[in-house]
Amino acid sequence: MSQAKELLDALHWRYATKVFDATKKIPAGLWAALEQTLVLTPTSYGLQPYRFLIVQDPASRAALLPHSWNQKQVVDCSHYVVFTARTEMQAADVTKLIARISAVRGVPAESLNFYRDMMLGDVVNGPRGKIAHEWAARQCYIALGNLMTAAALLGVDACPMEGLAPAEYDRILKLDGTGYKTAVACALGYRAAGDKYAGLAKVRYETGELVRMV
Amino acid sequence: MSQAKELLDALHWRYATKVFDATKKIPAGLWAALEQTLVLTPTSYGLQPYRFLIVQDPASRAALLPHSWNQKQVVDCSHYVVFTARTEMQAADVTKLIARISAVRGVPAESLNFYRDMMLGDVVNGPRGKIAHEWAARQCYIALGNLMTAAALLGVDACPMEGLAPAEYDRILKLDGTGYKTAVACALGYRAAGDKYAGLAKVRYETGELVRMV
Repeated sequence: MSQAKELLDALHWRYATKVFDATKKIPAGLWAALEQTLVLTPTSYGLQPYRFLIVQDPASRAALLPHSWNQKQVVDCSHYVVFTARTEMQAADVTKLIARISAVRGVPAESLNFYRDMMLGDVVNGPRGKIAHEWAARQCYIALGNLMTAAALLGVDACPMEGLAPAEYDRILKLDGTGYKTAVACALGYRAAGDKYAGLAKVRYETGELVRMV
Repeated sequence: MSQAKELLDALHWRYATKVFDATKKIPAGLWAALEQTLVLTPTSYGLQPYRFLIVQDPASRAALLPHSWNQKQVVDCSHYVVFTARTEMQAADVTKLIARISAVRGVPAESLNFYRDMMLGDVVNGPRGKIAHEWAARQCYIALGNLMTAAALLGVDACPMEGLAPAEYDRILKLDGTGYKTAVACALGYRAAGDKYAGLAKVRYETGELVRMV
């Protein structure tokens, strides 16, 4: 159970960091690992209907700030990740995944016809096709959960950012016409010594209230 | 970087388990740790607008099966987690969190009035109030991402389940009238020796396609 203890300790250690130390940067090797946790995120059908924008340009960060409820994490963090989700799902998205599976696993694309039709009948032409952006945004949240847990394990602070104006982000990040829209963001880096939120007790409801056995 | 390697190894090891060994159960202590990772999930404002139902009753599992595209993971896994999200957010949800913060941190509820009003003006009466269930469902997906990463780290197999009929789940799990609705599910346990999917190469797009520096 020592691994479980290490994991729970990390999840207790983490908190939504309000003040980042702007002078501390995540080392390149460590960042590369965090980036891979994003890439390895599981998604519905494996469709990966998102792109992760790492906003490092100071001018872009400054432009995003007023559209992020002026939360200084946007400009002070080491790495600022904007999760963008597909605006809609097209047959080409499915074809692209099939081609990728075929290449990675060395199987003929035709052998995946059943899988292809299942995806087309759901997220493109079926029930999820009508809510494809929302479905894609939910996949971004899997990545967000994965990333925050990974960061905690690696001793990196994070603050999830839902308080933002997606349309303004889209404009500043030039997403219009790309087929992707802003879903959520996450600031990563290292807490400032003076962040008083770091010392506050974590607030969660009782396990018995959140978790119920059926 | 050994911790980063361990994490990435775990994320490579995991896969959407298609066949669980129905005879292998997650030990109680290990399950308790996974349950705590759910409880510790970060959420917007800390509102925790969800409940996690652990469906262990065989009759309920059997009833859910046909509404889960007959995916046998529902009945064969060790622990079956159904993520349910608030149907709407009311002032009482905010009051409850404020009371909890007050109790856990030993501060007067009145000192949190600014925070209370911010939440009321957003997820209850503001823009997110109109899409409160969807907002709550997204929080479930943070928990899902967190849980899948945690499970992989602890050597527990998992399969996220989006292929299900939420309304049928709600009926079988008697959620109508509780203020919660099914968002997504996750089967956890141990892969069967014969699950051919375990050996397949993981399919992800190139890092350069998914991650872009701005």
